Amino acid sequence: MAAQEEAGAALLRRFRRAFRGEAEAGRERLLPLEGPRLIGEALRSGARLEAVVFSATGAARFAAKLRPQLSKHAEVAVAADAAFRAAMDVETPQGVAALARWPAASLAEMLPDSPQAPLLVAAALQDPGNLGTLIRAADAFGATGVLSLAESVAPFHPKAIRASAGSLFHLPVAEKIAEAALIEACRRRDVAIIAAGARGKTPLPAADLRRPLCLVIGQEAGGVPRALQRAAATTLAIPMRREIESLNAGVAGAIILYEAMRQRGAS
Amino acid sequence: MAAQEEAGAALLRRFRRAFRGEAEAGRERLLPLEGPRLIGEALRSGARLEAVVFSATGAARFAAKLRPQLSKHAEVAVAADAAFRAAMDVETPQGVAALARWPAASLAEMLPDSPQAPLLVAAALQDPGNLGTLIRAADAFGATGVLSLAESVAPFHPKAIRASAGSLFHLPVAEKIAEAALIEACRRRDVAIIAAGARGKTPLPAADLRRPLCLVIGQEAGGVPRALQRAAATTLAIPMRREIESLNAGVAGAIILYEAMRQRGAS
Repeated sequence: MAAQEEAGAALLRRFRRAFRGEAEAGRERLLPLEGPRLIGEALRSGARLEAVVFSATGAARFAAKLRPQLSKHAEVAVAADAAFRAAMDVETPQGVAALARWPAASLAEMLPDSPQAPLLVAAALQDPGNLGTLIRAADAFGATGVLSLAESVAPFHPKAIRASAGSLFHLPVAEKIAEAALIEACRRRDVAIIAAGARGKTPLPAADLRRPLCLVIGQEAGGVPRALQRAAATTLAIPMRREIESLNAGVAGAIILYEAMRQRGAS
Repeated sequence: MAAQEEAGAALLRRFRRAFRGEAEAGRERLLPLEGPRLIGEALRSGARLEAVVFSATGAARFAAKLRPQLSKHAEVAVAADAAFRAAMDVETPQGVAALARWPAASLAEMLPDSPQAPLLVAAALQDPGNLGTLIRAADAFGATGVLSLAESVAPFHPKAIRASAGSLFHLPVAEKIAEAALIEACRRRDVAIIAAGARGKTPLPAADLRRPLCLVIGQEAGGVPRALQRAAATTLAIPMRREIESLNAGVAGAIILYEAMRQRGAS
């Protein structure tokens, strides 16, 4: 019993590190997930859960349904509600958390050919919640995939995973891509780079978003990095009634993805 | 000196309460603001600052510019950087914070007549960041104002203020409005209620958003409250390629406001 409690404590420490965004030395990246919906979405998408922790309350609600879906190699523990809450860095923990193995896509997988729908590129985004929101919009509006540059917050940041509400598992997601490699890949595959920033030129409704394109969303205040701006075929402006400094980056990207879908004739 | 330090400590406690969203007994609501841009936006919009606290580092950067703009009745204090950081509940404090007097609009002020642009209604929203993002989009896309129902998170929640990035001061904002009063006001002024929820009927591009309307954004999962749904002329659906459960409420509202502006012929 004492040994089991100790194992539970060690597992909770792993979860705490994962939810803080700290990678484990010498291990592959594992995505920290909290709540039955996010975990269910991961399982339906084929993710393998390496470890699962229930709170005492959560075990009563979720364990019977979840246990049959776990491989026999998965580590499982039940923690006291307070210990569970302390380990998972989320505002309203639901009582079950998992570490899931999930592959990042490569740039080559992302752009095997000219994509029919936009590829969304997060450049220099700082807020993981905004990136998660963008992944959700990319999923809803049928983007080819989501890719983040080395300088941007990563799509596998715990708060980005959470804000994506499971959409992360529905489309290819790549991270830490070098700006130069992206520009070169777009050039070779004849994919237009379209930069959405605060001081863009082409009003959104006037832009042609039906060709193969890479849509670059920059940092809220700082905009799109210069090399990408230079490589861009177009810089987009979302028309506004009142000129505010900038829209929330998640909102700006979602509006452009919506407009691209509208232009491609979905309805 | 000791007396001054004590006054500073009392003021920091007021700020701590305000940033936690705790109202002061027997006082009017004061909005907690952090950072030179948000405070500057408030001053430009005519807000009166009742109290200002600088961190030691922030004082060196911001005090010379800000002090001449303060009334002589404003309480001012400088706190050690660590004490400042502990009092302001923000992730990256910039070193200056203020408590600003700012009026909420009434329903009658909101709907004096048939509004030309949509009035945005937050119904049962739970995330203050989403509401702040909506206020920012409402500002950008020229909405008449933003109104929150009694059951929704309030637009004057510290995190909503922050996410609004100053837009809160650009258009009328009302809070704690009763559902029945809103429905009655819309009926009298011939304003159509349009509900945006997960299971809406009319696809967004097919909806006529040029007439006087009240756009109701519901909770992400739960949707729009039933009485408002019954009173609604239309329930809107944002078309999607992949059917995800729902978009982020801030994103969904922003897309509809953008579409309404597009239909009204702005560009």
